Amino acid sequence: MTTTPKIIDLLIEARWIATVDQPDVLKNHAVAIDQGRIVDILAQNDAATRYAPQQKTSLGNHLLIPGLINLHTHAAMSLMRGLADDLPLMDWLQKHIWPAESAHLSPEFVLDGTRLACAEMLKGGITCFSDMYFFPDAAASAAAEFGMRAMIGILTMEFPTAYAVDGDDYLKQGLAAREKWLDHPTTHFCLAPHAPYTVPDAIFSQVLTLSEQSNMPIHCHIHETRQEIADSLELCGQRPLSRLNELGLLGPQFIGVHAVHLDEEEMQLLARNGCSIAHCPTSNLKLASGIAPLAQLHALGINIGLGTDSAASNNRLDLFGEMRLASLLAKGTSGDPSVLPCRDILRMATLNAAKALGLEHEIGSITIGKAADLCAVELDNIECRPCFDPLSHLINVAGRENVSHVWVAGKCCVEHKTLLPSPANRLEPSIALWQNKLEYCRKA
Amino acid sequence: MTTTPKIIDLLIEARWIATVDQPDVLKNHAVAIDQGRIVDILAQNDAATRYAPQQKTSLGNHLLIPGLINLHTHAAMSLMRGLADDLPLMDWLQKHIWPAESAHLSPEFVLDGTRLACAEMLKGGITCFSDMYFFPDAAASAAAEFGMRAMIGILTMEFPTAYAVDGDDYLKQGLAAREKWLDHPTTHFCLAPHAPYTVPDAIFSQVLTLSEQSNMPIHCHIHETRQEIADSLELCGQRPLSRLNELGLLGPQFIGVHAVHLDEEEMQLLARNGCSIAHCPTSNLKLASGIAPLAQLHALGINIGLGTDSAASNNRLDLFGEMRLASLLAKGTSGDPSVLPCRDILRMATLNAAKALGLEHEIGSITIGKAADLCAVELDNIECRPCFDPLSHLINVAGRENVSHVWVAGKCCVEHKTLLPSPANRLEPSIALWQNKLEYCRKA
Repeated sequence: MTTTPKIIDLLIEARWIATVDQPDVLKNHAVAIDQGRIVDILAQNDAATRYAPQQKTSLGNHLLIPGLINLHTHAAMSLMRGLADDLPLMDWLQKHIWPAESAHLSPEFVLDGTRLACAEMLKGGITCFSDMYFFPDAAASAAAEFGMRAMIGILTMEFPTAYAVDGDDYLKQGLAAREKWLDHPTTHFCLAPHAPYTVPDAIFSQVLTLSEQSNMPIHCHIHETRQEIADSLELCGQRPLSRLNELGLLGPQFIGVHAVHLDEEEMQLLARNGCSIAHCPTSNLKLASGIAPLAQLHALGINIGLGTDSAASNNRLDLFGEMRLASLLAKGTSGDPSVLPCRDILRMATLNAAKALGLEHEIGSITIGKAADLCAVELDNIECRPCFDPLSHLINVAGRENVSHVWVAGKCCVEHKTLLPSPANRLEPSIALWQNKLEYCRKA
Repeated sequence: MTTTPKIIDLLIEARWIATVDQPDVLKNHAVAIDQGRIVDILAQNDAATRYAPQQKTSLGNHLLIPGLINLHTHAAMSLMRGLADDLPLMDWLQKHIWPAESAHLSPEFVLDGTRLACAEMLKGGITCFSDMYFFPDAAASAAAEFGMRAMIGILTMEFPTAYAVDGDDYLKQGLAAREKWLDHPTTHFCLAPHAPYTVPDAIFSQVLTLSEQSNMPIHCHIHETRQEIADSLELCGQRPLSRLNELGLLGPQFIGVHAVHLDEEEMQLLARNGCSIAHCPTSNLKLASGIAPLAQLHALGINIGLGTDSAASNNRLDLFGEMRLASLLAKGTSGDPSVLPCRDILRMATLNAAKALGLEHEIGSITIGKAADLCAVELDNIECRPCFDPLSHLINVAGRENVSHVWVAGKCCVEHKTLLPSPANRLEPSIALWQNKLEYCRKA
């Protein structure tokens, strides 16, 4: 009995596929995609008889993985990449970052900065990012322009800026932005109270209510530095996590960003409440905040994703770098080279992050029914030879420079290492303009 | 008065030049090269009137730096890249690396493996490597084929292999190899006693004598793991560094590789004796050895270079990665984000390493009279925009994928990111062959 091949939009054949939700790497399989979704995963031979794709991409030396998810960034800060480095945190913030922001913060700054970040992230295999910055409507616009999936944070804090005057105003503006994008298929919103030291209890309570009403994750910096904890103890006699716990913030919707300094009890608290952590190893080292106890957190079953933080404190929006660094640091600081093997690290950068964002039904693994957010990593350059295990090479050898193709919801965004449609020409004049303005402010 | 322009082999114009021996980055300068040496460094306008180059390379968006020096590797082990990962050290060595070596170690293995390593390193801006492995003559041949500068280690240890039967035999074979290459301009030899736990006192004494007679550096693994120190205490009641000190090994010719676990007194000892350290941060984390106290060692004025270690424990021979990781770890573990700013890190990967190898008169900085070992880093891709400080981008943003041109002794080895003459076709059949053999041995 022969059946007529089914017409589908796209068939991607790959030498290796790491689905993330299956234990083994599939060899010589194909992913069938229709209307932006994965409709089948099968051997290439079978795919040839069952499907008649409108388009076919054959990746003979590639590992296909789910699109990477950047669980924490401030995308627009890309315009301040390397504006100031090698400085104590407070000098860096007070003398460089904040003055630059106070001089230039505007919807245009956020639009251009997020565009730059999207271009960089997509080229590096990142298909979704969780953002926390001012003017969220501008950030959402940039992501949508690039066809990139985004979880836009509704930032709030008690700190007047060109964007908003107080915690209430931040929330009001963020919720208004969310309204505009409610029906957009790849643009999502979450709550983003900045940090315990910038957000008062009353605003945290509003955040909690909004999260419960609209089923939105809460994305918040937490226990990044020792200073933050010492200040909180002095101000209110409590460590920040304990305060958030009393306010009822901790639960499966809570994403704690950084979580570098945690005592045993706090780790248990996060585990018990089903919280997620956005681990940002490069930023934590660069700002000398410290090293999060990743192996311990993982052993407690806490859901951990990876974030780049902003290009001002990293200075790459590169999840390949974060995957490798997370793996290395966990081994080096725990004394156990077998902790967090490659598949666990890949899961952090994909399915765990999707779970943290409440999007695990939609993205994070190569699974029938999910959106076709995919990344192809080419492993045939001399730096990748020989190759005994593609998953090991993904974490230990490959870099974002090995990303050859990227799809978001089935739409190709990067082809043969080139962004489609190439926005580089459109971007450059505005980047040069911002560089001049910031340079001027830097020298002033 | 007009003077006739002087005919020279090559003029390289670059937007930025970090000479390493001058504090500032030069803008719009040029490097004049003749007969493999740097003969002038001057403003581009002046160069146009003073020199008539046979060849000119204009690098409009590039930072020109000295060729990077990999102060510690086992190049041929590239053939075992990713053979086994995420394993405890002794499982990794005893069940994977040693069986593979005992089955396959041969001059052909070392020749092909070192060729692969040279191709990778040159493409990544590394112009010189300090090697420690079996069959040093084969390693020297591979480096010479690629026109790459090398410091080939005369390995010795009490461990019979296909290469040599005991410590004396290793030395005899290594010295014979050295004889063959004595007149070669870019191939140097040093002594490479493997480690205190594999080399007996009598051999260390011979090594010291040979070093003194021929002015050769001594390249030796030291204090890599806690176990090594515990074992030494049990065996001879001494920590390894104390033993080497008594044997008279410590001095300006000594390069201690790893040096992860050091007490205060040992740091002082290394400083007092003018020893160098080859810091290998990725390998130390991956094998869970720990984190060397880089900020402290640097503050004591110890000369520190950077090494990749082998591709079996890294798995990249990538000094851009090591530069960034060294910088990040020093900040993150010292709690001070201002330690080891970019220029110090670049110096480690260039001039400090040259000094450790006794080659600081020849390489390590862009200085008139030195060999033209150079690396151009392209900083105009979207991931590098904007750029306020090219030195910050070199360490914090760029990767080896940004290396566009590489010269060794004035000869272009990499042009527009392509190895010249491209050996990729020559390399691939032998890599595939070794991969098959190793795969078989891995599954046996």
